[in-house]
Amino acid sequence: MTALSSLSRGLAAPRGFVDASFHPPPGAIRLLAGIPAPEALPAEAIAEASAELWRDHDAAAAAVQYSPAQGFTGLREWIARREDVDPRRIVVTNGGMHGLTLAVLTVVERGATVAVDDPVFPGFLWALDVATTRILPVPVLADGFDVQHLAGRLAAGARIAAAYTVPDFHNPAQASLSAEKRHGLVELAERHGFYVIVDNPYRELRFAGQELGVAAFNESDRVIHVNTFTKTLGPGWRVGWLVLPEHLVEPVIRLRGRLDVHTSSVTQAIVERLVTRDDHWYDGVVRSATRLYRERAGVLVDALHEQLPGAFEIRAPEGGLFLWPRLTDDSIDPGALFRRAAANGVVYQQGEFFAADPEQLSSARHLRFAYSDRTPDELNEAVRRLAAAFPGGSR
Amino acid sequence: MTALSSLSRGLAAPRGFVDASFHPPPGAIRLLAGIPAPEALPAEAIAEASAELWRDHDAAAAAVQYSPAQGFTGLREWIARREDVDPRRIVVTNGGMHGLTLAVLTVVERGATVAVDDPVFPGFLWALDVATTRILPVPVLADGFDVQHLAGRLAAGARIAAAYTVPDFHNPAQASLSAEKRHGLVELAERHGFYVIVDNPYRELRFAGQELGVAAFNESDRVIHVNTFTKTLGPGWRVGWLVLPEHLVEPVIRLRGRLDVHTSSVTQAIVERLVTRDDHWYDGVVRSATRLYRERAGVLVDALHEQLPGAFEIRAPEGGLFLWPRLTDDSIDPGALFRRAAANGVVYQQGEFFAADPEQLSSARHLRFAYSDRTPDELNEAVRRLAAAFPGGSR
Repeated sequence: MTALSSLSRGLAAPRGFVDASFHPPPGAIRLLAGIPAPEALPAEAIAEASAELWRDHDAAAAAVQYSPAQGFTGLREWIARREDVDPRRIVVTNGGMHGLTLAVLTVVERGATVAVDDPVFPGFLWALDVATTRILPVPVLADGFDVQHLAGRLAAGARIAAAYTVPDFHNPAQASLSAEKRHGLVELAERHGFYVIVDNPYRELRFAGQELGVAAFNESDRVIHVNTFTKTLGPGWRVGWLVLPEHLVEPVIRLRGRLDVHTSSVTQAIVERLVTRDDHWYDGVVRSATRLYRERAGVLVDALHEQLPGAFEIRAPEGGLFLWPRLTDDSIDPGALFRRAAANGVVYQQGEFFAADPEQLSSARHLRFAYSDRTPDELNEAVRRLAAAFPGGSR
Repeated sequence: MTALSSLSRGLAAPRGFVDASFHPPPGAIRLLAGIPAPEALPAEAIAEASAELWRDHDAAAAAVQYSPAQGFTGLREWIARREDVDPRRIVVTNGGMHGLTLAVLTVVERGATVAVDDPVFPGFLWALDVATTRILPVPVLADGFDVQHLAGRLAAGARIAAAYTVPDFHNPAQASLSAEKRHGLVELAERHGFYVIVDNPYRELRFAGQELGVAAFNESDRVIHVNTFTKTLGPGWRVGWLVLPEHLVEPVIRLRGRLDVHTSSVTQAIVERLVTRDDHWYDGVVRSATRLYRERAGVLVDALHEQLPGAFEIRAPEGGLFLWPRLTDDSIDPGALFRRAAANGVVYQQGEFFAADPEQLSSARHLRFAYSDRTPDELNEAVRRLAAAFPGGSR
């Protein structure tokens, strides 16, 4: 008589990320999640745009009523200009995860296999669970998703419905997919007839190196390109978007209309007002945020080099919200290190939580530090506490 | 190489409601959808609550960040008091349709059979499509869902995963489920081990007759009770809630966290501020709205009696947003009537769109008028245009 659907019975307990049952000691410095710095979010402009909305009688009346499933026209047009695509190809979502879910439900058959980044953003596996738990882990190298590896697996007979990757400032592995491999991945998808689910929430947050472009993604009819305002205007809005191939627009709109009708008209109206207030406003928000994240990334990297010289192999981030250093001393037990660090008052994500292939032990040698919402003082203190947790460190 | 999932391939074109390809003539009076009257939505209070939020530094900072998948605590507590349940059993949703989708995905096995109202709110069938298209239509009588009919089908061997009904001011059939049958339905579910998905968006909008209560639903561990602020604060918020049996709370939170993380913190923060501003504010909003809807229902019923005497069997609504009159003259072709009415400048929903059992022709003898967002003058004019579309009416 227990009549839960097999879907809800079968949903694996979320893997990835510090266990929900783990409670960091009070006062612990949390380097846990890719949360935008509160001071990087445009509080004043939000208050103004919101006040303007409610003062504008017609716009206010529209904001509390139903609106089209595809999203607000002005917002889609603004997004389409930035993505350099036709606005018809944009569907507004309730943020990045919702975009991933829509992508999965649209192109992943129940029980199908999906190639995923290894290490992988665990949230994608949670979304994927709605359709399948069968994955084909593909290593993420210094220049991103290993397209050659996937090509080899496909040549050897593997069949996949989709491939999932974060191409810019990978979570957790920092890597960005090279321009060449962007084209290679898309060509592979076109040749084999699978879809690429491109998850791009950090794309705007570049503070070093060269932009790699997204035209390869947006020009292919085998790519669902997922993005969100979460990292720039805040996760609380739950407003994101999909860039879809023409032939997927109708199926996705139909599906999302059935799931939840449309994204809040209120949040769309405010976000639309924000981004369209002038041509440079959004770029300004992104610029201040990246300035802040560059500083924080720098402080963290410097502190690790200074206080724990040689303890990690570190690549300086070129953008995004994460540092993914590798422990150089193979005799260190990362679990024990984490417990000592937590006892000392600093918590982060253990690399093992991001392993797509549990047999693959390389992720477990990494730590993921999220630096975006911590001040330079906190970051320095966090590394001090971490250093004290290392064998021989003073506790 | 077409690799759409069978879900997205299989989604039936939405049935129910005026065809999307149908374009009413310009100037037509639309009696199409259960849309709250703009003047019934508390514009001033919304502007104030929103301004307060963005002025409150801590609350504003929280509103643009992530928040718990289950929903804002203060909002859940307020809802729980009105539902007379423990706040742990409340999960905030992105509105009623999202609540229905979560309910379906949680308790309806793929391909399972679900008993549904006949006539039925077509939106539920769209949500249901995500899991199954197998339905067992159950007639909606003057006192609601025919529990005896379902009991008979179950006794004869039918097996269902869930039963779906709108218990208060049924869409489209106006009926409210009697107090006795509320208990009867719940007992049947408990005995046979299925879930009842109770869809209750109109519950607050009673303007005549006696409240029937929801304790029978909220006290059973076989009921998912779905509600929303759509009809009282506006559809644009996309904020609703589920009252869940204890054992479904965790599965639903897990599932919804995977689908889209959480409902917008911004909309929850504003709605929470609105409803908790004082103990009687929300009741006042509901009272003004129902006063308006009572007047409009009355105008519509009176106009039909006056201008089309005897043409319909009409029950005066006791609440909600719809009138479901039945054509008394069996020689009238409802499709032809609709086309003439549309040509005359009035559109409504044809009864046939709500038939859960396409063999059952009784729904097709009905018209569904949505009166909530039309003024008395518009309603009178609408009936004048309708009258002119009747055989013998002057065109």
